[in-house]
Amino acid sequence: MPEPPAMRWWGWGEPGHPPALGADALAFLREHVGVADTPSLPVALGAVQVESSALSPDAAHALREVVGQQGIRVDHDERVLHAAGKGYPDLVRLRAGIPEGAPDAVLHPRDRAQVRGLLEVCARHALAVVPFGGGTSVVGGVSPLRGESHSAVVALDLGALRGILELDRESLTVRVAAGMRAPALERELGGLGLTLGHFPQSFEYVSLGGCAATRSAGQASTGYGRFEEMVTGLVLLAPAGDIDLPAIPATAAGPELRRMVVGSEGTLGVIGELSLRVRAAPATRQYEGAFFRDFASGVQALRALAQEHVAPAVARLSDEAETGMSLALAGSGGLKGRLGRSYLGLRGYGGGCLAILGFEGTAEEVEHRRKRALALLRRHEGLPVGQSPGKAWLAQRFASPYLRDELLTQGVMVETLETATRWSNLERLHREVGGAIERALAAQGTPGLVMCHVSHLYETGASLYFTFLARQREDAIEQWQAVKHAACEAIVDGGGTITHHHAVGHDHAPWLEREIGIAGISAMRALKQQLDPAGIMNPGKLLP
Amino acid sequence: MPEPPAMRWWGWGEPGHPPALGADALAFLREHVGVADTPSLPVALGAVQVESSALSPDAAHALREVVGQQGIRVDHDERVLHAAGKGYPDLVRLRAGIPEGAPDAVLHPRDRAQVRGLLEVCARHALAVVPFGGGTSVVGGVSPLRGESHSAVVALDLGALRGILELDRESLTVRVAAGMRAPALERELGGLGLTLGHFPQSFEYVSLGGCAATRSAGQASTGYGRFEEMVTGLVLLAPAGDIDLPAIPATAAGPELRRMVVGSEGTLGVIGELSLRVRAAPATRQYEGAFFRDFASGVQALRALAQEHVAPAVARLSDEAETGMSLALAGSGGLKGRLGRSYLGLRGYGGGCLAILGFEGTAEEVEHRRKRALALLRRHEGLPVGQSPGKAWLAQRFASPYLRDELLTQGVMVETLETATRWSNLERLHREVGGAIERALAAQGTPGLVMCHVSHLYETGASLYFTFLARQREDAIEQWQAVKHAACEAIVDGGGTITHHHAVGHDHAPWLEREIGIAGISAMRALKQQLDPAGIMNPGKLLP
Repeated sequence: MPEPPAMRWWGWGEPGHPPALGADALAFLREHVGVADTPSLPVALGAVQVESSALSPDAAHALREVVGQQGIRVDHDERVLHAAGKGYPDLVRLRAGIPEGAPDAVLHPRDRAQVRGLLEVCARHALAVVPFGGGTSVVGGVSPLRGESHSAVVALDLGALRGILELDRESLTVRVAAGMRAPALERELGGLGLTLGHFPQSFEYVSLGGCAATRSAGQASTGYGRFEEMVTGLVLLAPAGDIDLPAIPATAAGPELRRMVVGSEGTLGVIGELSLRVRAAPATRQYEGAFFRDFASGVQALRALAQEHVAPAVARLSDEAETGMSLALAGSGGLKGRLGRSYLGLRGYGGGCLAILGFEGTAEEVEHRRKRALALLRRHEGLPVGQSPGKAWLAQRFASPYLRDELLTQGVMVETLETATRWSNLERLHREVGGAIERALAAQGTPGLVMCHVSHLYETGASLYFTFLARQREDAIEQWQAVKHAACEAIVDGGGTITHHHAVGHDHAPWLEREIGIAGISAMRALKQQLDPAGIMNPGKLLP
Repeated sequence: MPEPPAMRWWGWGEPGHPPALGADALAFLREHVGVADTPSLPVALGAVQVESSALSPDAAHALREVVGQQGIRVDHDERVLHAAGKGYPDLVRLRAGIPEGAPDAVLHPRDRAQVRGLLEVCARHALAVVPFGGGTSVVGGVSPLRGESHSAVVALDLGALRGILELDRESLTVRVAAGMRAPALERELGGLGLTLGHFPQSFEYVSLGGCAATRSAGQASTGYGRFEEMVTGLVLLAPAGDIDLPAIPATAAGPELRRMVVGSEGTLGVIGELSLRVRAAPATRQYEGAFFRDFASGVQALRALAQEHVAPAVARLSDEAETGMSLALAGSGGLKGRLGRSYLGLRGYGGGCLAILGFEGTAEEVEHRRKRALALLRRHEGLPVGQSPGKAWLAQRFASPYLRDELLTQGVMVETLETATRWSNLERLHREVGGAIERALAAQGTPGLVMCHVSHLYETGASLYFTFLARQREDAIEQWQAVKHAACEAIVDGGGTITHHHAVGHDHAPWLEREIGIAGISAMRALKQQLDPAGIMNPGKLLP
């Protein structure tokens, strides 16, 4: 099995990934957002500043006793590779060569026993431990933070804990080592006619343990469920001991401990193994577009799809702003005909909203569901516009993080954030969060573009996913913080959850208490105190 | 709104419920199980022995300060009504007039504030608190247990906390006070064209808070989901404070606290409110029967239904023994034709297994799903036998607990227990648990009938629901304990969960550690210690 690929230390994707920001897009950005006069490239890797490792010789010796010389790395480059996740502020800092910090060592255990041994050493030597899977967190989930009581901080890279440990075809259940990457699992399952069906935007690099730790939801979660719904069993290696929960379909034996571990973001221990529900790979995939006269009618159509149980696996609705930008960028790039402004304008959909619908399943399932779904959409004056928008979306479904790197090069701030709420509150929250971001951008003197889509449908509500772009200021981090803060306040004030699938990490921790209350925070702290009595696991994340 | 109905103190149903055990059934029992020479009836209510209330005058005074004179009852009859749940040993003891104990007082708070006030008084006076909803637990979940440190034990009857607090039609979400009974909610929702879709066998008396506390799964859970999947928000009134989680469709904000409260069985606090996902009431219901040549082929058919996503809302498969008894009891009672032994015998299904399939939804949904489901069944040599078995099942879906009372009158022990496991382990677990029960019955000198059905289908597995009947011995409790113990051991040894929908209560607590490990138990204890520092909430339940 090949090693998990290492991403560019300063951004997304592997070295050599071709650029994708075309001339049209750049012109659009220049007109609507503003770009830098000269592109700014990342510093050289060797120029990235990290303090010298604070790991004591005693601690280093004890760690080596567990994982050997090869299992512990303290060199500059490896530390930089584990210095941050892939959030906007992470990238701004890395490209400038001044990350907030770096782990004092990177540990590479090869099996569960070594993880257990490392946790014991770390507890004894007061080393903060940051579990590190794909390193794709966009909320500071893998930042190398340490508390005042920690002598140093180590990244625990789980890349070597990978592979399928057991496949139960009859029960459609697979047990994997948690460091396994999502594409590797999909490849192996694909060869057997199976799929997990979990495709977050970070799919190409994400680890399965990371998906569990962050309660990830993939782009096709409307069809395949959220990651937590796929987890039928797991092993948590906590400093205080193992929690080993076998794969069972359902139980009433007390509170659901699986759901206590899923979402714990490395603060309770290391997720070592996962049992996951898999499905037959879809024989048919049909992705297509539909237009709505406005956001409100599109939302009502999506609600009907979810509540009448005919939603496709992927269902997304861009608001007017996101639709406008998609069309502008696609306009001269190939998408013509039914996506042309003139065609839409003639039909009365000129300022409308584009939805992407992705049906997956057997040919018969797709045919039946699609027929019923399209009938529902027509009730809401939805206008089918063929497969080209669907195909374009599929082709680009993992592209945004690559694009972000290029936007940073052009001096453009780009960030995404997300929430979820009930249907009855969705349009109001859309307005309020969008408005808050716009006002914050304007207050920073950098008005830009704010757009949003609805995705991840549930019977009772859906998620809202916002993107904003603006000209990057000199003080890029403060600029970002101001906008992010305003958005988070608007989300929590407006009745949304602080995160639907990005997790809490470091960035959202200040808002968690507003969502679950002081008693909820206390309950989580009690759990942590029990499972991680020395407080070494991922300090500064999740809990405020 | 009418008061929630009070059940017969010694059994199921309201006073005056007509008997249902016909002459045929009695003859069948006499032949295959053995019945008592003379029926044994419950003692008179006044003859039930309870110790005098241990509630101190100080504590009583403080409780009265919160709920007034009417809110606290210490009379004999009220204490007997709250002395036990509805498990087999509960009924044996109650009928004999010698319950294991009774609460020293029964509290009837009228709102959340009174519950909060009562919890504070109980913590101050070291009163153990047993939250009491419908009182239908079959695992000792409402037994009036107290620990050594408690001065007395009170039942906290939530019957007055009822009604719909908020209906969000657009989001298909209803917020209710947790003492509300399931039938009352279904009645109100039905008037609006909606349904919750939660129909446990205890439906007629169960409270919604009780369903949440025990992670209940209704008979139609294959279609409508388990109760925990319906809970989108809740309020837990814990001694240490309120956890108030609003209704949201999904979140990635840390571990799922909703799922930490659901299943906590009153040990963390009192569930005061619930936000529940509802659905459009089904326009069409079609319930029917199908025969399989044997249990194994029926199981494979059900697995295909679940894994190919065409399972009906209700799907159950009786094993040969349960099918045999159903046919024997139905034989001369009306079900003829395609259910007759001669017809089935001619077709090669003589010793086969009966499945009940209940399709619900719009007419179009039912037609489409049923067509695909029946095609799948035929692949497994399933033989459709028409609607009469389905109608008979629907008519009798809540009847078993009434029948149990009559069996007790006839001196017959009858008990049910349940588990769930992966499809690949289902047949083996069926054999092993069934065998363990048979051997235990034989060892007690009372060989009887052991039967089982599969129900509650999931993609990765299903539940097994066992029923056994035997001649009751003099030492009925010891006899039951021996068989129950053997069954629980076989379940846990065989890789099943100790409970799929009956919950842990007192009866299953000794097996919980085998399922979730010592670290899992410790985590739950830490949670309890935080939320219930004085340890007053439902002692002796859930945690061993």
